[in-house]
Amino acid sequence: MPRTTLIHGSPDDIEAAYYDALARADLDALMALWAEDEEIVCIHPGAQRLVGHAEIRAVWEDILSSGGLHIRPRQLHATQNMMTSVHSVIEEIDHGNEQPDVHVIATNVYLKTAMGWRIVMHHASVAPGAAPVEAVASGAMLH
Amino acid sequence: MPRTTLIHGSPDDIEAAYYDALARADLDALMALWAEDEEIVCIHPGAQRLVGHAEIRAVWEDILSSGGLHIRPRQLHATQNMMTSVHSVIEEIDHGNEQPDVHVIATNVYLKTAMGWRIVMHHASVAPGAAPVEAVASGAMLH
Repeated sequence: MPRTTLIHGSPDDIEAAYYDALARADLDALMALWAEDEEIVCIHPGAQRLVGHAEIRAVWEDILSSGGLHIRPRQLHATQNMMTSVHSVIEEIDHGNEQPDVHVIATNVYLKTAMGWRIVMHHASVAPGAAPVEAVASGAMLH
Repeated sequence: MPRTTLIHGSPDDIEAAYYDALARADLDALMALWAEDEEIVCIHPGAQRLVGHAEIRAVWEDILSSGGLHIRPRQLHATQNMMTSVHSVIEEIDHGNEQPDVHVIATNVYLKTAMGWRIVMHHASVAPGAAPVEAVASGAMLH
C-alpha cells in the first residue's frame, strides 16, 4: 500500500492493510501499521501477551516464516471518536467444506497519531463452534 | 461508588469500580459503567462475542447469580489519548497454593462520553500457564 494511503488512511484502511500484510507475509509492512509506542499489545489466540515492538515483531516473524495468513475480517462492530476506533471482528479463515469447531474473535484498536491512524492493540482469542451468523435487522445500516 | 465519582472518575477509577462491582455481584453498578452505545462488546474467556447492553447484561446476570467474582487486575499496560484509554491487564484470581495451568488476559477500552469515562470493550481470554511476572526495569516508571 502506498505510503500516502498509510498517512491519510482511515482506521478501515489500516485494518485492510493489516490483513493484507498478513496474507503477503510482509513483516515490515505489518509492523509499520503499529503505533510508535512501547505500550502496544498483541495477543494471539491461546498465547501469552506480547508487549512492545520487539516482542510483537519476533513472534510475527516466527508465524509468518511458514507463509502468509489468509484471514477475512467479518461482522465488524465499531465504536469510535475523533481519535480512536475500536473494532471487533470475526476472523474468517478458509476451512474448506469442514464445519470448524472453533472461531477466532479479534479486537483491533486504532489511535490517531502524528503518522496517521495506527494499531495499538490486537487481541485475538478462540470461541467454541463455528462463527454465529448475525441477523441483519430490516432497515438497519450495514457497516 | 458515589455517582460523582462515576462522572468525574478517571479510566482507572472506572476500572476499579468494574472489578468492585464484580466482587459484589452488583449487576446494576456493573452495567452503569458501560457506554450508552449499542456497539459495546464483551467477550468472556472461551465464549462467544456479546454485542449491546441486552446480551451483555443477560450473560453477566447468569454468571453473577452464583456469587461475586474476585479478580485483581495486575500488570497494567495502557495507551491513551484525551478521549480514550486502552488497558491490558492480567486478571489475577486466587488459586490458593495451586499452580494454575492457565491465566486470563483482559483488554478493557474506555472512551470519554458525556457521562464521563465509560467501558466500550471488555475482551478476556485464556493463555497457557501461570501469568508470567514481568521484570521491572531499574529506574523505569511504575504505572
